Amino acid sequence: MIRAAVVGATGYTGLELVRILSTHKDVELTAITSRSNPATLFSEIFPSFKGIVSLKTEEFDATAISTKADLVFVALPHGSAMDVVASLLTEGLKVIDLSADFRFSSLSTYEQWYGGHSCPELLKETVYGLPELNRERIANARLVANPGCYPTSVILPLMPLIKEDRIVNESVVVNSASGASGAGRSAIVSNIYCEVNDSFKAYKVGEHRHTPEIEELLSLAAGEELLISFTPHLIPMNRGICSTITAKLKNNLSTKDLLKILEDFYHKETFVRIYPEGSYPDTANVRGSNYCDIGLKVDERTGRVVIVSVIDNLVKGAAGQAVQNMNIMFGIDEGEGLNHVPFSI
Amino acid sequence: MIRAAVVGATGYTGLELVRILSTHKDVELTAITSRSNPATLFSEIFPSFKGIVSLKTEEFDATAISTKADLVFVALPHGSAMDVVASLLTEGLKVIDLSADFRFSSLSTYEQWYGGHSCPELLKETVYGLPELNRERIANARLVANPGCYPTSVILPLMPLIKEDRIVNESVVVNSASGASGAGRSAIVSNIYCEVNDSFKAYKVGEHRHTPEIEELLSLAAGEELLISFTPHLIPMNRGICSTITAKLKNNLSTKDLLKILEDFYHKETFVRIYPEGSYPDTANVRGSNYCDIGLKVDERTGRVVIVSVIDNLVKGAAGQAVQNMNIMFGIDEGEGLNHVPFSI
Amino acid sequence: MIRAAVVGATGYTGLELVRILSTHKDVELTAITSRSNPATLFSEIFPSFKGIVSLKTEEFDATAISTKADLVFVALPHGSAMDVVASLLTEGLKVIDLSADFRFSSLSTYEQWYGGHSCPELLKETVYGLPELNRERIANARLVANPGCYPTSVILPLMPLIKEDRIVNESVVVNSASGASGAGRSAIVSNIYCEVNDSFKAYKVGEHRHTPEIEELLSLAAGEELLISFTPHLIPMNRGICSTITAKLKNNLSTKDLLKILEDFYHKETFVRIYPEGSYPDTANVRGSNYCDIGLKVDERTGRVVIVSVIDNLVKGAAGQAVQNMNIMFGIDEGEGLNHVPFSI
Amino acid sequence: MIRAAVVGATGYTGLELVRILSTHKDVELTAITSRSNPATLFSEIFPSFKGIVSLKTEEFDATAISTKADLVFVALPHGSAMDVVASLLTEGLKVIDLSADFRFSSLSTYEQWYGGHSCPELLKETVYGLPELNRERIANARLVANPGCYPTSVILPLMPLIKEDRIVNESVVVNSASGASGAGRSAIVSNIYCEVNDSFKAYKVGEHRHTPEIEELLSLAAGEELLISFTPHLIPMNRGICSTITAKLKNNLSTKDLLKILEDFYHKETFVRIYPEGSYPDTANVRGSNYCDIGLKVDERTGRVVIVSVIDNLVKGAAGQAVQNMNIMFGIDEGEGLNHVPFSI
Repeated sequence: MIRAAVVGATGYTGLELVRILSTHKDVELTAITSRSNPATLFSEIFPSFKGIVSLKTEEFDATAISTKADLVFVALPHGSAMDVVASLLTEGLKVIDLSADFRFSSLSTYEQWYGGHSCPELLKETVYGLPELNRERIANARLVANPGCYPTSVILPLMPLIKEDRIVNESVVVNSASGASGAGRSAIVSNIYCEVNDSFKAYKVGEHRHTPEIEELLSLAAGEELLISFTPHLIPMNRGICSTITAKLKNNLSTKDLLKILEDFYHKETFVRIYPEGSYPDTANVRGSNYCDIGLKVDERTGRVVIVSVIDNLVKGAAGQAVQNMNIMFGIDEGEGLNHVPFSI
Repeated sequence: MIRAAVVGATGYTGLELVRILSTHKDVELTAITSRSNPATLFSEIFPSFKGIVSLKTEEFDATAISTKADLVFVALPHGSAMDVVASLLTEGLKVIDLSADFRFSSLSTYEQWYGGHSCPELLKETVYGLPELNRERIANARLVANPGCYPTSVILPLMPLIKEDRIVNESVVVNSASGASGAGRSAIVSNIYCEVNDSFKAYKVGEHRHTPEIEELLSLAAGEELLISFTPHLIPMNRGICSTITAKLKNNLSTKDLLKILEDFYHKETFVRIYPEGSYPDTANVRGSNYCDIGLKVDERTGRVVIVSVIDNLVKGAAGQAVQNMNIMFGIDEGEGLNHVPFSI
Repeated sequence: MIRAAVVGATGYTGLELVRILSTHKDVELTAITSRSNPATLFSEIFPSFKGIVSLKTEEFDATAISTKADLVFVALPHGSAMDVVASLLTEGLKVIDLSADFRFSSLSTYEQWYGGHSCPELLKETVYGLPELNRERIANARLVANPGCYPTSVILPLMPLIKEDRIVNESVVVNSASGASGAGRSAIVSNIYCEVNDSFKAYKVGEHRHTPEIEELLSLAAGEELLISFTPHLIPMNRGICSTITAKLKNNLSTKDLLKILEDFYHKETFVRIYPEGSYPDTANVRGSNYCDIGLKVDERTGRVVIVSVIDNLVKGAAGQAVQNMNIMFGIDEGEGLNHVPFSI
Repeated sequence: MIRAAVVGATGYTGLELVRILSTHKDVELTAITSRSNPATLFSEIFPSFKGIVSLKTEEFDATAISTKADLVFVALPHGSAMDVVASLLTEGLKVIDLSADFRFSSLSTYEQWYGGHSCPELLKETVYGLPELNRERIANARLVANPGCYPTSVILPLMPLIKEDRIVNESVVVNSASGASGAGRSAIVSNIYCEVNDSFKAYKVGEHRHTPEIEELLSLAAGEELLISFTPHLIPMNRGICSTITAKLKNNLSTKDLLKILEDFYHKETFVRIYPEGSYPDTANVRGSNYCDIGLKVDERTGRVVIVSVIDNLVKGAAGQAVQNMNIMFGIDEGEGLNHVPFSI
């Protein structure tokens, strides 16, 4: 039995971690923390958990947690996470951090896009927790940086094509759209129901912080610096990310050729599903599940490929991927606790 | 008083035409037709019009309409519209056609993307009804082809930049997203509430019929053939289109430079609003109104501009633009009947 | 020209007042105030008003407003409104207050449900601003208390039946449901998009403050104290209230009989529409308009009538009704500026 | 291993049955039928099931099914179900029918509300499949009639209070609201996204077919005929039913008293959760799960209790309850395969 704790359990990512962990047969959830709702029954804050989770939230205390847990999921905002993570590692715990604080191998990139870092020495040992790329390193990590939601949806489909040198690296244009849970459980006017409903908009045009994360990973694969145009949008729905990626092809390749590359790359993966020619995924096809679904089409008129990939931002984009990483770190079946059938309706 | 008729009044475009025309002070709506709901009070089909519109639907009869109307709005699907339009012109009526049937000057383009045409001789005289570009020709037209919804949202922001030769023509990538009213009032499974709600998806990837319409207009402006990558998406909301356009810049231009070009181009236009630097429009900002709102940013890292433009697909993307065209054709104030304040909440 | 000011212009009710007043041909909007966004262009806070409203918000100052306005709409929360209203009256202005502060003729009822009152002496002269019941008194009022949204939807359909003594007074059960704009533009967690979307719930069961307001008006009509069971619910949509009212009938009356009573009572009213037998209104049928639509059915099995009434909570339930009151107070056409066709799609 | 088949697998109820059964560890799903999508991979019709369900739909053939299955879930519309059920019983199969065809012990009630019945002789032996009331009889049934969605949400909270004679039987007023999946996966105009979104309405006022089903069960408990006023509404969301029940109390009972009765009645039940005083359930609290959550309040002013109960119409209101019945019929743990944590966001 893995004894797990969730730090920041009352945000949407924390909530989703609790949802998934509460039915994971090899996990005992032993501690949850919350600053906004301290010392309260989780099932009182979220009555949906009545009869399911009987824990109370507690204040964060690394030493106290170390007596109860083997692994800690840290679901705090970037900036707040780094010190918490460091203190947990000091206590000898394994940590999966869901913030951006440890996602970059380059300190200067972090500083440029996010600000100062209090424990840069940890960046070196941290493993970027995308199981489909880093499975072996994750297995041996004590600190895993869980990928961002947008990056997961972009890196998975692009990685094989870049590694095989099929696309013109400087031509990548990414348009993504996310459900409103991506903005977190923050009481701010722009998050109010009436401001999001019946509305669709681009935001942080040319300056979203997931841009360098995507670029670092793709550059590694490309063997050269690769910059992308990334424009995120907000969709009036709770969950789901759809990334539409357009790129020039290096050669005369067909839709079938590119699908074959993806299928070959991912044929052993449980959570990546490649769609047949003529078919494209819908965010509803993966809702509530850990899948990343991918479809694509070569447009011969323009010499570009258009790739459509979807994930549930809270699952494969956050909590589900974190649990997948945990499974790998503890040597159990990678899909354990993640067999949710997508909730398509 | 302009005596106007609407052919196909019970689809969403027809319904919106009736909504707008019913409060237009220079218009008397004299006839409405419907195949699906014949010989029925409009206010029985749509109780929202109780006490507002007292007309009954009738079957289409060009001669009967010619005794009651000076102008006819044809809101039928492409393919069905062409013969209706021809018969109305024969009766000496002015026509604004909201289908795709007369949007192309090139017959072969129409045939390639849509199929056969029964009255290609009319294509030559038809005026493409984008007032901001063709105002003078619209004023004298007897047949106006009202633009498609996606094309309106793409052509308006791009036209000035292409005319001024600021962007690399072959680099244009367009990602658009539309509310569900764009799919029409058709009883098909993919239109059912539960299939659209909580869902976001790309559709007709690389093959949407608005692609050649956009390309024809932009090529004209560019003075050379210009092909685009166009990927439409479906948003879980009723109304609104957001087009996010990415293109390489020819020179070292700033956000301010490009905004200045758009402002200069549109400063006399009532229905095009350019946003200041750092601000991007939301579909909610134009809902229920005839505005096209545009914001943009130059991303110096990649040398690209990202333009965001929004319209209400049923208003500036269809019925509102049609009424704007009517106003021009009849020499009245272009904004008459179109002073709806956007319904942002 | 009526010179009008809106105090509290950046909440949803204030925003809707500005939307309606900005196209009212007999009104000049001369001042708007906001505590949350002071000294800012209204069109910067709400870009949908770009090119439509050029005012800046100012801080509230009764004397300053008195130099610019003849009438003030006060759109503040209850408790905050009373002093503002008193100061405006002192300056000789006419006031329409959209809070609950002046809706009760009984001070003790106000105190019991809302708390203390700083100017109870004004309660006597205040007119309850439901035009269909109090038109003459509104015409001569200097202070009009604009009705609550739920009360408007409940009083209009019940009043005629109670006045005619058709229903058993103690049998009235009201279930209402409101869109999320009813909760205001407050940044609190329960208003966040993800907390409201895909969710339906009752709230303030047995203790909603609109209960005594409904009861006071209905009791007046009944000539005896009348208590109701009132349960409000929250709907995942922006606008609209639907009230479903169930009551025992005193006599053996048919659906037709009751519809006739309502039709006779309201046949001269522009903004109350009675539906024919077998047809019931939908909130979408009145969205964005000042209508109250009503349908009903007698259930002979149980001896009860079920009445369904709908309004747009921001229009007939707030800003539209306030403008209707203004029109009456200034002797202009009651429907002026309120000819919005319902925005059913 | 229970070998199970689903007849009518491509409607929303069938789809939900497949979703639940596909992760039930004691069930092998061996056959699925569809008239609208015959001989097609289920995962092609619903790509969310890619990699999860590998079955193809087949045409209905009772004999063929009998070679593969022990139990059949029939998820067809009423009228279509009865003959299918009869033929499956003839083949010796156990059947859980999710239509209304076998829910009534009284043939005349069925005929009055639904029409003719082809196998009325089966009505006698059929067990009404509400486990919390009929567990023992379900265990031994060969034909279980799965309750309607609205009835489940109304009978569960009312039954204990009626059995204990706490409420005035003729005073029960029920207002329910359902998500759009309740209308089925039918391509009709009233189901189109734009017709449901941003809209709330009552429907089938005084004539919904679930009325007699509720009345039959409650009358049995009351020991006398009990008629209710039942008004259903449509909510713009996919899943969930909220029933708000108002009734006069026989005695001076407090909220605590009534909660105690419900808690005592249901304290051994896994899927009924009673909320503490002052707290009411939200449909989101049970989404995707088999729970029925109940809260209530005594309104001393009117002598009435207001009860709020919520279920997921597709789970406890259909497929989940059917699986619960199956578990009972096959003697396995009643909650097996039903441990879905509610999907509250």
